[in-house]
Amino acid sequence: MADGFRVVDVTRVRGRSRSTDVDRAAAEEPLEVRLHGRPFSVIMRTPGADRELAAGFLLAERVIRGGTDLGAIEYCRDGDTAAENIVNVLLANGSQAALDRLLAGRRQVTTNSSCGMCGRLTIDSLRDDAPALTCRWTIDERTVAAFPDRLRAAQSVFDETGGLHAAGLFAADGTLIATAEDVGRHNAVDKVVGRMLMLDRLPLTDACLFVSGRTSFEIVQKAFFAGIPVVAAVSAPSSLAIDLARDAGVTLLGFVRGESFNIYTHPDRITSHA
Amino acid sequence: MADGFRVVDVTRVRGRSRSTDVDRAAAEEPLEVRLHGRPFSVIMRTPGADRELAAGFLLAERVIRGGTDLGAIEYCRDGDTAAENIVNVLLANGSQAALDRLLAGRRQVTTNSSCGMCGRLTIDSLRDDAPALTCRWTIDERTVAAFPDRLRAAQSVFDETGGLHAAGLFAADGTLIATAEDVGRHNAVDKVVGRMLMLDRLPLTDACLFVSGRTSFEIVQKAFFAGIPVVAAVSAPSSLAIDLARDAGVTLLGFVRGESFNIYTHPDRITSHA
Repeated sequence: MADGFRVVDVTRVRGRSRSTDVDRAAAEEPLEVRLHGRPFSVIMRTPGADRELAAGFLLAERVIRGGTDLGAIEYCRDGDTAAENIVNVLLANGSQAALDRLLAGRRQVTTNSSCGMCGRLTIDSLRDDAPALTCRWTIDERTVAAFPDRLRAAQSVFDETGGLHAAGLFAADGTLIATAEDVGRHNAVDKVVGRMLMLDRLPLTDACLFVSGRTSFEIVQKAFFAGIPVVAAVSAPSSLAIDLARDAGVTLLGFVRGESFNIYTHPDRITSHA
Repeated sequence: MADGFRVVDVTRVRGRSRSTDVDRAAAEEPLEVRLHGRPFSVIMRTPGADRELAAGFLLAERVIRGGTDLGAIEYCRDGDTAAENIVNVLLANGSQAALDRLLAGRRQVTTNSSCGMCGRLTIDSLRDDAPALTCRWTIDERTVAAFPDRLRAAQSVFDETGGLHAAGLFAADGTLIATAEDVGRHNAVDKVVGRMLMLDRLPLTDACLFVSGRTSFEIVQKAFFAGIPVVAAVSAPSSLAIDLARDAGVTLLGFVRGESFNIYTHPDRITSHA
């Protein structure tokens, strides 16, 4: 899968040392699935095996029940430069009436914020929606390195089940403002942001979001909409998470473990204690 | 968060020894979010901070832009026994026309397979859709223990980026039939299942699905629809994944690491070499 990663710039913080390097990030791009030429759904995915992905997705959505329901799956070749991010599926024996029923339930495609023919378009539409974050406060790298321990100390269920993700909202001095756990990483982020929203404390321009897993496009998007300028995670960011963070003015950190982490975008907000 | 886990039965395989025990699994249940009483979306989540989750979710979906757009968020109390899985959101200044526009894009709620007032209803509707898997072949526990190494050996990108999930389809003798990588765990499963579907090899009644992360309701659902009777994962299953696996006739394994793993449902398919 040659297309599975993107080369990205990274600043590596290792205790007191800091160096710039290049790294590889897992590729993430939207795939639009069309049924007989009409929009059906958009899936954020790693390019590769897209026709297989569409087939498996349509099985799980009960649009098809097996191989005999499937006609052809082809990449769109309609002059669009990003056609590698659109597949069109033809159903076997697909009647227009059955298609109409299916598609009537799928109009959200045109309103979903992650809809788009390519990642570029998606990010541009977000930028039209809200300005990039420009706040200029900084956070010390030792404070960042302490996020995992502080979040773990506040978690109640994770250690017992091993099955929950956690999200924490930290102030620049390292104070834990809010925390949430959920089987879904995205849900945990929605819960901490939602709590602050209900307290009418948005935008969260002086807060850092820390998540226990990986960082996808959607996680950065959620932080951006909440006005959070620093996003840190225990694991790796996707390529589109990095692209969005760069354009949206969000400082993105990954692999926050022990005294080490990586800075992918806007390193100016992270101060060194060397 | 007292409601964050469920007590479940487990068979622990540790090398040559096998014992039964009780364990805790992260709770997963669907939350239906309504806008002014009308269905908007269903989120698979861990119960707790549901109002916060709904608020954060609506922010990320651009239904609201901040606390001032939010009226009230309340659990439904309409005599439904599962009302703790439904929240109703009132928007401030929410006009009927704006609501109609929003909801027009959301009709998929009524067709989505994970839609339901509670996990029980969701599972029942799946069972109506397809019969439980009853195939009786077995797989040796040493074969299961070898899944992680065999899958890792076939992965091309994971080790370089640390950001990809993997899914593998194995035969009962441990042969790797298909593998896929993706930033999304669900996508990786759709890719391997979709490949087999395109080869017209469904139902996959003699295959095991192995995934690199956790097992949610949706992962088991995807396996069930593909006819796969054994699902194994490196990490923990959710409570609803276990419930569905039990009812759907799927053998569910978790924490497959080294010579150890846990069996959550239908242990008869796993043979011992003691």
